Amino acid sequence: MSGRLAIAIDLGGTQLRAALVDGAKVLRRAAEPTDAVGGPDAVLDQMRRLIASVEGDADHAQVAGIGISAPGPLDGETGTILHIPTLPGWDDYPLCDRLRDITGRTVVLENDGISAAVGEWRHGAGQGLDHLVYVTVSTGIGGGVIADGRVLHGRRGMAGHVGHFTMTPDGPRCPCGVVGCFEAHASGTALGKRARAAAIAHPESALGALARDGHVDARHVVAAARDGDAVARALIDEEAWLLGRGFASLVHLYSPERVIMGGGVVSGFDLMEARIHHVMRENLMPAFRDVVVVPAGLGENAGLVGAAALILDQAL
Amino acid sequence: MSGRLAIAIDLGGTQLRAALVDGAKVLRRAAEPTDAVGGPDAVLDQMRRLIASVEGDADHAQVAGIGISAPGPLDGETGTILHIPTLPGWDDYPLCDRLRDITGRTVVLENDGISAAVGEWRHGAGQGLDHLVYVTVSTGIGGGVIADGRVLHGRRGMAGHVGHFTMTPDGPRCPCGVVGCFEAHASGTALGKRARAAAIAHPESALGALARDGHVDARHVVAAARDGDAVARALIDEEAWLLGRGFASLVHLYSPERVIMGGGVVSGFDLMEARIHHVMRENLMPAFRDVVVVPAGLGENAGLVGAAALILDQAL
Repeated sequence: MSGRLAIAIDLGGTQLRAALVDGAKVLRRAAEPTDAVGGPDAVLDQMRRLIASVEGDADHAQVAGIGISAPGPLDGETGTILHIPTLPGWDDYPLCDRLRDITGRTVVLENDGISAAVGEWRHGAGQGLDHLVYVTVSTGIGGGVIADGRVLHGRRGMAGHVGHFTMTPDGPRCPCGVVGCFEAHASGTALGKRARAAAIAHPESALGALARDGHVDARHVVAAARDGDAVARALIDEEAWLLGRGFASLVHLYSPERVIMGGGVVSGFDLMEARIHHVMRENLMPAFRDVVVVPAGLGENAGLVGAAALILDQAL
Repeated sequence: MSGRLAIAIDLGGTQLRAALVDGAKVLRRAAEPTDAVGGPDAVLDQMRRLIASVEGDADHAQVAGIGISAPGPLDGETGTILHIPTLPGWDDYPLCDRLRDITGRTVVLENDGISAAVGEWRHGAGQGLDHLVYVTVSTGIGGGVIADGRVLHGRRGMAGHVGHFTMTPDGPRCPCGVVGCFEAHASGTALGKRARAAAIAHPESALGALARDGHVDARHVVAAARDGDAVARALIDEEAWLLGRGFASLVHLYSPERVIMGGGVVSGFDLMEARIHHVMRENLMPAFRDVVVVPAGLGENAGLVGAAALILDQAL
């Protein structure tokens, strides 16, 4: 195991993606819809196919191994998927062992939030830092933590579930089953829900007009706010307030040098940036007040680049 | 620097304590009321006196150095106190340098929550673990985190402010200045406040009777609940609910093998234990549900033993 290239796989509930990665550069990529019905055996077959496709004619000895980014909870130490809410049949599945048997290669498995954090740390908005919190604000809120120059893993590699601390004693139920999590309040899904309620309450607004034409979600809020719609602006301000409070909590808990925000909702970062920082400063103890939030640098490639970095770091 | 003994100092807002420590054993101890009015210079003088007193006739070469436990925020990397709310005049004070100049010894400075976490990890309720969260529930809520077999420090050593994540968007104001922190809801101080309100609302209760005789605080709630007073029992149940929710959040964030609870409120742990675990299981994702809370093993010595362990670990 000595190559400078790595194969990265991003196992998602809807898309299975693979890439041949050189540092931050994705040299080749391939994707298929995840065969959710077929279960692990079918998906392993897909992985083999995608790996062959991205590996192409690359020198076998140059490829250090395979890094997999997958939804948690998973056990990174043993390379086992514990449970994937969106993919039935994967409970306690020893993915690393299986893929190692098939490919003969070194395989590492990491939570998708942590993979993206590593990607941003090595090659994105967190380069050169020793301490960072990466937060993806998307369908849910996930992320990963780099502290003291290392990935924070915790028991079974499950640390850094940054979307699942209690923000309110009641309020919306989170997909994780708990009431009032940061994710339940501030995810893109939660913003979309508030947008649909606002569209009904304000049929005269740009959001109201959009709702007559179809489904309204977080992206529409960002677009309408950018166009100056007051209802959308208020929603964005509320989202920024929620994110500012949540990020402030994470800064007290992990003491990062920087918070890196990724995920779909970051497309509206410029609209929220000032308010997020204002709310953070209001909610941080003085010694933490200079910590800022920056948008992610690698976009949807963060997880693939990070999974590859895990293999390449190990190879060093 | 090679000894197997260490001098530990616990700098508190009211008490300055020093001890000669051998592993978990406190061989000698001494204390003075902290000279808050005199400021750092006067306290340094106190430290020198206390160190001489606990060092006694111990073989100089056997003493590896001095570990100091102090209230945060402080910068452990540079050995600088940043700010102590209860002690004016200490802002940006280079305590390690000053004490090194005076004593000629190696000095390390650590947050009191982290020191106690290290004490419990090395010699208390967390021995042999790689991942733990220590939470002291007392006047405030503080603590420290061990993850992946190491102390979690973060930027400027300020990670692990476990009492300062947002639990409610409004509600009680925390001593840190922010509204709705875990500390503001669930500290011993907060429990005491609720107890005084309950004593007024229920003058016929045991708490009501106590309130007529003087000041009611968290200790009285524990004592009255133990005697079967229904009002005190309800307060204890509420406290357990708050702690259960807070601990569940910390488990998602750090993924410890165990949560260790210290501080004054832990005196009522047996009354709260079942409910804390019930609430945690309700608020944890399945993969985290087997994590339990245990009471601290070292009591008020945890910080001293931990500060000594930091020196002794460094000496190894």
